[in-house]
Amino acid sequence: MEQRTEIASMGEFGLIDHLTRNNETRQASTLLSIGDDAAVIDHFGRQTVISTDILVEGVHFDLMYTPLKHLGYKAVAVNVSDICAMMATPTHITLSIALSNRMSVEAVEEFYEGVYAACEQYNIDLIGGDTTSSQKGLFISVTAIGEIRNDQFVTRSGAKVNDLICCTGDLGAAYAGLQLLEREKRIFLENPGVQPDLQQKSHIIGKILKPEARLDVVEWLQEQQIVPTSMMDISDGLSSDILHICRASETGCIIYDEKLPIDPETKEMAQEFGLSGTSCALNGGEDYELLFTISQSDYDKIVLSEKISVIGYITAAEEGMHLLTRQGNKHKLVAQGWQAF
Amino acid sequence: MEQRTEIASMGEFGLIDHLTRNNETRQASTLLSIGDDAAVIDHFGRQTVISTDILVEGVHFDLMYTPLKHLGYKAVAVNVSDICAMMATPTHITLSIALSNRMSVEAVEEFYEGVYAACEQYNIDLIGGDTTSSQKGLFISVTAIGEIRNDQFVTRSGAKVNDLICCTGDLGAAYAGLQLLEREKRIFLENPGVQPDLQQKSHIIGKILKPEARLDVVEWLQEQQIVPTSMMDISDGLSSDILHICRASETGCIIYDEKLPIDPETKEMAQEFGLSGTSCALNGGEDYELLFTISQSDYDKIVLSEKISVIGYITAAEEGMHLLTRQGNKHKLVAQGWQAF
Repeated sequence: MEQRTEIASMGEFGLIDHLTRNNETRQASTLLSIGDDAAVIDHFGRQTVISTDILVEGVHFDLMYTPLKHLGYKAVAVNVSDICAMMATPTHITLSIALSNRMSVEAVEEFYEGVYAACEQYNIDLIGGDTTSSQKGLFISVTAIGEIRNDQFVTRSGAKVNDLICCTGDLGAAYAGLQLLEREKRIFLENPGVQPDLQQKSHIIGKILKPEARLDVVEWLQEQQIVPTSMMDISDGLSSDILHICRASETGCIIYDEKLPIDPETKEMAQEFGLSGTSCALNGGEDYELLFTISQSDYDKIVLSEKISVIGYITAAEEGMHLLTRQGNKHKLVAQGWQAF
Repeated sequence: MEQRTEIASMGEFGLIDHLTRNNETRQASTLLSIGDDAAVIDHFGRQTVISTDILVEGVHFDLMYTPLKHLGYKAVAVNVSDICAMMATPTHITLSIALSNRMSVEAVEEFYEGVYAACEQYNIDLIGGDTTSSQKGLFISVTAIGEIRNDQFVTRSGAKVNDLICCTGDLGAAYAGLQLLEREKRIFLENPGVQPDLQQKSHIIGKILKPEARLDVVEWLQEQQIVPTSMMDISDGLSSDILHICRASETGCIIYDEKLPIDPETKEMAQEFGLSGTSCALNGGEDYELLFTISQSDYDKIVLSEKISVIGYITAAEEGMHLLTRQGNKHKLVAQGWQAF
């Protein structure tokens, strides 16, 4: 039988000590980490980028099919993704959790294993947080901090007419993976004897359960000295997120349906659910890929990267925001992304 | 009838826009605030102090007797208090909330009124956050950021033998106020016709519902060029918190019972509940006063301040941690502060 230690048996400080006993610092800028009222960071003349996100059980994740280690990893990755979306280098996170007594210390440890794995992956320091109880469900709040050379950060508002619209990786996979997991959950609840076969679906399931922040692309762009004119990460779905860029930049856009990078697994799963791959890509959300615009003069550099697709271009605001289909039809883009409420 | 707008009718972005439409920036260091993936801060050669806290409905607050505006103020103040406890100057916060559908937009607005009032009081910028739904209850996560001249931050670990132990304000009042509110709640639930008379209890009720961070004391200490050897804020109760300082500093301590600053309202309320004022002060928690140690050579400067009490002194570790009563008896200090689990 697996060991179960009640959180109450350790107390708040015992639990914090226990969970952070192997916490390493990697950043020379971390002057003081966990264990005081606040952490202290040096900046060496750089600017700081800061972002925060909450993940709520039953709203953002379902513990029935979400391994806690993956959840810990994801909680960090989605915040690191926001730092990447500024073209900044992530350096630190704080992590707060509110736990119900349903969770054992072992379960929280598993969650932290994922947190630490992500800290290692992205070379960042966990420097603080808060741990408390909740009456119901698990709440996770992460604040991520990054650094950037003075005034080199990239906002959503710098896109210019004729800029190329680019995205990383492939789109819609997380949504397809979520639909699959939700279906298998329903089947399992009706018939607990049936074990889901998810063998051929590792890409879409990986994208929903353990997404990666595209720090690799940020570093590649920096190496190539490509400075996007605008950038954000795709968390609510491409159509919702490109609208954010267009509104902030006071532009319109054209997105080419045929240019959308969609994985075969995503297409297959979409078909099973009577959807199109395009609709998963536009409205799915949770991709955590980067969406950015570049000057046309950077096109020659961008095509060198297999990680980046050019999916459209920026137009004048009065031309509106449209998807151009293979058949040459224009459809108005509407934000149908994920709704928190 | 009061207006009730469903949060769902606004959507996440509508709600965020609505709540942050009057958000002002006060800090020249705020280069980019709410509305992008992350905020951007400049540092002008200073170091950054960062701290984070969660407040959970049913664990940290009871909406039956907590006005939402006070709650918003408190959520900011308790985080600012952590920044003050490093002898740093608070500059920015991020605020994330998870809301149940029980809350209306008007209710969230009231909460934000308190948040903005605290931002004004402490001269800080709200620069980001996340807003989402919860299945049950209100969750509030605040990350506070402050700045400090290079390497001037004060940790918990610098107390030296013979240093004086000081605290600000008065202790135990928040605990006494909480007991009073809990009693009045029980009476009200049993007999809704009875209106509580809290007229003569404004100090203790104010301390629990709307505590202030002691930024005033930090500024005073800076003006007097007093650099505490160690510092923290009293959130879990004096006995628990002085143990943190002693453990981090590898020292012991003596606290004088008769020197503990306890307000008459606290004493009176303690008596009604069959407690002593001392036990409220030692074990109460949520005071958000500052606890710090200074070199004896700073004593002459400290006595000038009415806001600061000298309550004991630091001893060698092997002498242990004790309370010395009026009768000259020594009692071992035990952490009995607030337990999150």
